[in-house]
Amino acid sequence: MDPSLSPELRELQQRTREFIDDVVVPLEARDTPRPGGGHHGPSDDFRVELQDAAKAAGLFAPHIGHEFGGLGLDVAGQAVVFEQAGRSLLGPLALNCAAPDEGNMAMLEKIATPDQAERFLRPLAAGDVRSCFAMTEQSPGAGSDPSMLRTTATRVDGGWALNGEKWFITGGVGAAFAIVMAMTDGRATMFLVDAGTPGFVVEEAIDTIDHISPGGHARITFTDCVVPEDQVLGAVGEGFRYAQVRLAPARLTHCMRWLGLATRALDIAMDRAATREAFGSRLADLGLAQRLIADCVIDIETSRAIIARTAAVLDSGAEGGLASSIAKVHVSEATYRVIDSAIQLCGSDGITVEPLGRYLAEVRPFRIYDGSNETHRWSIARKAVKARTRETGPAVR
Amino acid sequence: MDPSLSPELRELQQRTREFIDDVVVPLEARDTPRPGGGHHGPSDDFRVELQDAAKAAGLFAPHIGHEFGGLGLDVAGQAVVFEQAGRSLLGPLALNCAAPDEGNMAMLEKIATPDQAERFLRPLAAGDVRSCFAMTEQSPGAGSDPSMLRTTATRVDGGWALNGEKWFITGGVGAAFAIVMAMTDGRATMFLVDAGTPGFVVEEAIDTIDHISPGGHARITFTDCVVPEDQVLGAVGEGFRYAQVRLAPARLTHCMRWLGLATRALDIAMDRAATREAFGSRLADLGLAQRLIADCVIDIETSRAIIARTAAVLDSGAEGGLASSIAKVHVSEATYRVIDSAIQLCGSDGITVEPLGRYLAEVRPFRIYDGSNETHRWSIARKAVKARTRETGPAVR
Amino acid sequence: MDPSLSPELRELQQRTREFIDDVVVPLEARDTPRPGGGHHGPSDDFRVELQDAAKAAGLFAPHIGHEFGGLGLDVAGQAVVFEQAGRSLLGPLALNCAAPDEGNMAMLEKIATPDQAERFLRPLAAGDVRSCFAMTEQSPGAGSDPSMLRTTATRVDGGWALNGEKWFITGGVGAAFAIVMAMTDGRATMFLVDAGTPGFVVEEAIDTIDHISPGGHARITFTDCVVPEDQVLGAVGEGFRYAQVRLAPARLTHCMRWLGLATRALDIAMDRAATREAFGSRLADLGLAQRLIADCVIDIETSRAIIARTAAVLDSGAEGGLASSIAKVHVSEATYRVIDSAIQLCGSDGITVEPLGRYLAEVRPFRIYDGSNETHRWSIARKAVKARTRETGPAVR
Amino acid sequence: MDPSLSPELRELQQRTREFIDDVVVPLEARDTPRPGGGHHGPSDDFRVELQDAAKAAGLFAPHIGHEFGGLGLDVAGQAVVFEQAGRSLLGPLALNCAAPDEGNMAMLEKIATPDQAERFLRPLAAGDVRSCFAMTEQSPGAGSDPSMLRTTATRVDGGWALNGEKWFITGGVGAAFAIVMAMTDGRATMFLVDAGTPGFVVEEAIDTIDHISPGGHARITFTDCVVPEDQVLGAVGEGFRYAQVRLAPARLTHCMRWLGLATRALDIAMDRAATREAFGSRLADLGLAQRLIADCVIDIETSRAIIARTAAVLDSGAEGGLASSIAKVHVSEATYRVIDSAIQLCGSDGITVEPLGRYLAEVRPFRIYDGSNETHRWSIARKAVKARTRETGPAVR
Repeated sequence: MDPSLSPELRELQQRTREFIDDVVVPLEARDTPRPGGGHHGPSDDFRVELQDAAKAAGLFAPHIGHEFGGLGLDVAGQAVVFEQAGRSLLGPLALNCAAPDEGNMAMLEKIATPDQAERFLRPLAAGDVRSCFAMTEQSPGAGSDPSMLRTTATRVDGGWALNGEKWFITGGVGAAFAIVMAMTDGRATMFLVDAGTPGFVVEEAIDTIDHISPGGHARITFTDCVVPEDQVLGAVGEGFRYAQVRLAPARLTHCMRWLGLATRALDIAMDRAATREAFGSRLADLGLAQRLIADCVIDIETSRAIIARTAAVLDSGAEGGLASSIAKVHVSEATYRVIDSAIQLCGSDGITVEPLGRYLAEVRPFRIYDGSNETHRWSIARKAVKARTRETGPAVR
Repeated sequence: MDPSLSPELRELQQRTREFIDDVVVPLEARDTPRPGGGHHGPSDDFRVELQDAAKAAGLFAPHIGHEFGGLGLDVAGQAVVFEQAGRSLLGPLALNCAAPDEGNMAMLEKIATPDQAERFLRPLAAGDVRSCFAMTEQSPGAGSDPSMLRTTATRVDGGWALNGEKWFITGGVGAAFAIVMAMTDGRATMFLVDAGTPGFVVEEAIDTIDHISPGGHARITFTDCVVPEDQVLGAVGEGFRYAQVRLAPARLTHCMRWLGLATRALDIAMDRAATREAFGSRLADLGLAQRLIADCVIDIETSRAIIARTAAVLDSGAEGGLASSIAKVHVSEATYRVIDSAIQLCGSDGITVEPLGRYLAEVRPFRIYDGSNETHRWSIARKAVKARTRETGPAVR
Repeated sequence: MDPSLSPELRELQQRTREFIDDVVVPLEARDTPRPGGGHHGPSDDFRVELQDAAKAAGLFAPHIGHEFGGLGLDVAGQAVVFEQAGRSLLGPLALNCAAPDEGNMAMLEKIATPDQAERFLRPLAAGDVRSCFAMTEQSPGAGSDPSMLRTTATRVDGGWALNGEKWFITGGVGAAFAIVMAMTDGRATMFLVDAGTPGFVVEEAIDTIDHISPGGHARITFTDCVVPEDQVLGAVGEGFRYAQVRLAPARLTHCMRWLGLATRALDIAMDRAATREAFGSRLADLGLAQRLIADCVIDIETSRAIIARTAAVLDSGAEGGLASSIAKVHVSEATYRVIDSAIQLCGSDGITVEPLGRYLAEVRPFRIYDGSNETHRWSIARKAVKARTRETGPAVR
Repeated sequence: MDPSLSPELRELQQRTREFIDDVVVPLEARDTPRPGGGHHGPSDDFRVELQDAAKAAGLFAPHIGHEFGGLGLDVAGQAVVFEQAGRSLLGPLALNCAAPDEGNMAMLEKIATPDQAERFLRPLAAGDVRSCFAMTEQSPGAGSDPSMLRTTATRVDGGWALNGEKWFITGGVGAAFAIVMAMTDGRATMFLVDAGTPGFVVEEAIDTIDHISPGGHARITFTDCVVPEDQVLGAVGEGFRYAQVRLAPARLTHCMRWLGLATRALDIAMDRAATREAFGSRLADLGLAQRLIADCVIDIETSRAIIARTAAVLDSGAEGGLASSIAKVHVSEATYRVIDSAIQLCGSDGITVEPLGRYLAEVRPFRIYDGSNETHRWSIARKAVKARTRETGPAVR
């Protein structure tokens, strides 16, 4: 349906689809949520097995430059491939384009020094290690509002000493390193901190409703944790700006992956509807089901369209904060509606844990993380009013 | 806010609220979902402990007549007390007014012979045993459409032989008896079947997203399961009519209980919002939060109003099928919205499993069971058009 | 469907329905909107003709006490009769229970001195004159926020001199008197001001999308307009309190009347759907139409339920501000949805001006006047948080 | 915000915006709806004046090829320019890209013979005449379902005799010619019928809620109306196929134009919000207003995105029926929501006829014409299920 795809991208799309269907989906039964504490998400062994398969299929790390072993896709290309990968909860992990590693790689590729890139990006891009992004703090620290950051970094001999507490850090348990945001003299700076550094403690993962991220969402503490000077990421004091560099595209890649899961959910529901009857008609032919299906299709297609449009903005080099906020709110709500409707279409089969019940739990947090949709709406409205005021000049009362 | 409550009912409402807050809520931590198979819901020991506390508080079995040890409330009174009970997932179980036992008691009270009442209703009302209601079958059997019933009962010497398969039978595992619907000569009949009857096999509970019902949702099979004549419930061939007798009020009591949980969820969210800040204001004062809170209040109050109105219909002796369909659709969607918004208001705290993440999973199935909302909408529309056609006379084209 | 109605009220309901169907509906063609300036709404002659018919049918002024020629219904009774009256845009006018006269009568009955009642209420209740309620001012005056009132009244010899400008005053053109709210020494006071008093000028009606109110929505100016002491309504300085006395019930009677129009709209749509076909089925049997119809029924019944519940609150003597805010938001949005869906169900026939296109325009302002739904939501949220805080005690951080 | 625009298109976009703001908007006061019968929309003189201005600005007929005096934009380019034109209700008329002429020109450009193009397309493209598209019939004829066409054309000496009745034909009154769809031997054929042909009678325009189309929506009858052979448009029997050729892009150009009006409505609301206060804050800073503004922005941007995506499909030469159905449903509902929210943001100012009250009435029919949204949803669901079934192979039950 999308005539703007190049033949190469179309081929890659098709190949990703087949890899997910033929290789990843059959392995899904091995990933069973283990709520109630401990590590979360697929094990490292399982992850490596999935990633080896993706490497064999030539689909590994589609978003990373060739020099780091990836396919070098731009954001528009990622939109196509990540959506296909997202059709399985395990797909993004297999392609090494799951959060938070994917966003960390993208940021490192842009900001890291050559030495840092060799040391941190290369093994991450290769799937040898996992990482985390440690910005969020529990209220009253930096939640949606980074200016409230309370973790600090103070200069010490040969580097910086970090103190503070981070919270809801995805992938924290088992990460080989963390990208940590801390205040330095009233401004924010990013640090690359190795696991095992004294004073860097990853506590247990929080017991959340989603279970797909290896390492779960962890609480992390820093106590006089000393980081050498050459592990400052980018320039001192530029942390907030870099955060934007990371966040706008990272929000959009979330959209891409969850859109894929939404298409899978609708397919599951349509497959079932096509073989069931009620009131003497095929369920798929009944109006109330048709209404749900049509609204799912509209949600999917508008999501795809706003993702493509935002990808074009980002690929043009623009900052894309407003565009990605809009996409995030729309796609996070649209994909949730699709999965919710797929459950409704499946009736009692819809409320078993696998597959759809779990999809609902996995996608629900997306309306909250990466900035809650309410925070994005607040920001969208302010930017819209500001842009309009710029256009019309100061109001005369 | 409701001036129509009698002083007695108001006192009972208050007392139930205090019992839930003071006795039940502190015990909630002992009920942890155990997904992944096996029995579901609180253990029998825990149930008995909760019910003993409710007995001590004089709140046990509010819906059942005094002769069976209950408080003898009419439907309007149940609406008040069940809502308060529903503020804890454990509350209805404590008061012995949880599904499916509550609906089974109500039906037995109306239909059972005195002997059957002694044998089946009395121990159920006392909390000595649990029961289940075995009507639903997997497609293409009787799901939402009871006319597609495939389980059969054929006359044998001294009774009836049941054959067939039931599915999604809440409370199945561990039930002392089942009320089973089966076809007899083209019509439906209800049977009281004791656990342990040869040929009556309760298989493992299905792995669903909700975990509060003791015994989970089970698959049950009947293979030449012989039931004696005096365990026919009511008259032979009247099963569908009795099902309506059970379903209309049972739908409404679900509404009452889930409404209670929705009020709890909103309280949790408001308590948190009152102590958090964002953008320099109390979260509870921010417009986007206010919008969510206001819509929750409206959903709660309209739910309470339509429940009260439907209770009045049922208490008048009317069949109440249409009224309870309307209430079911509205309340199941309104309570889901409230819990979803409470999660949103709590941000990251909202997506931990306890408490709100779990509430979402527990309430989601309500839009599907007791007739999916789509089936009810279909029925509501047909009845509305029919009623209007009766009013206007046959259309002249 | 409502078993709680007394036989007397049920009879009155039925009689009102018949009066509307048999007498008022046939006259509807005589009321054609005349946009583009000048007077609005039915002419005074037409109004008198309609009201004479209602008097003959024994249905006149159902909300007013017997001593003023009415039927003396409490709020619960009004809910039943006003809904039936509202089935025609002309019905409330015929029964003399249209806004703003109905709300003015209710307030005068509660607050006016015996002399004022004779002079202002009696002719109003009899339909001899019309009135208006002059509170709203254009921004930055008192819109939704009465504390911003800028019209003033200062003591002069023998009374008070009013100065200021009111705006969007329904029924202004042709009103025999206005109830005017003005600031007196920092507090608000109400005045009864006769048309024709020097300095009291009613300007032309604003060109709004609704056309049913006789006298339209006018701009009114007061310039040294002297009002005698005995035309102060109630006590000096108590205007805000009286405004609440008027507003809470007046909001609810709007709900009652517009609910009636929503039921009419759905009936029109169902009548049409029952005689049309598409895709080989009766339109009324097609699922997408069924969905719209079912949602309309749910909106109507939840509206009816929340109105009844709020009426009970008001009849109990409670202030009812929160309850009527909730009812106002729900019913104004629900009735709008119903009329919008009725249009959709009627296809091209739905977008002709009469009848449904006009209904949409007539009902749209209800989400804005009597406090915009946003203002009510803000107030509902604040009251909910406050009530919860009272319940839990001061938050400990 | 859209980096994919070429510099030429960006310049054209900017120039159209300025033309609308500087030339068209100041003339808007001259277009006042005249409901109550007779001709509708701007007069022919006013239309010519507007079009002369657009010609002078080099913006006339952007969608038509250079050989007919247009700018030759593809669908993607039209999306950009038509949106800007749509910011004024008069803009599309000024640029000669209003419905139904715009769709007729597009179809004639594709299907007409050179002679027909000279005779019918050239004067239409030049703005010398207006036209109409006569397909729809009143139930039980061809409404949304063209297969129910009842108008017939039978061969007579030298041509065809048309008989039948068309209804809701936009632009009918005053059209120089009609493109008429009629049944010929069980298949549909299109005819070019000149105004004035004996037996071709345009009755009065229907009194609808929208007033912007010159010529309104008319009923047209054909009684032995003889059309010469060379006025068959395209091949005999291919009418349905041509209708699709017209309908898919025509649906999308409606989306473009109404999207422009939605952006205008939001600007009006933001301009007002930026200068008003409530509760001591600028209205634009209050959360409940921010929520409305943010949702408007999201509706506008997702509309723009799905329009761009569908334009790419159409420009690729694909049929685009499914894509344009999806766009139609989303954009017609999104633009309606935006205008409705703009009204809400403006409070009492929002319900005056001009400007926003009128916008609501003008845009409401878009959810109904060009196939009601329900019909499109039905079609979208069927196509989705069909596509999925093709993908999975025949279901095994």
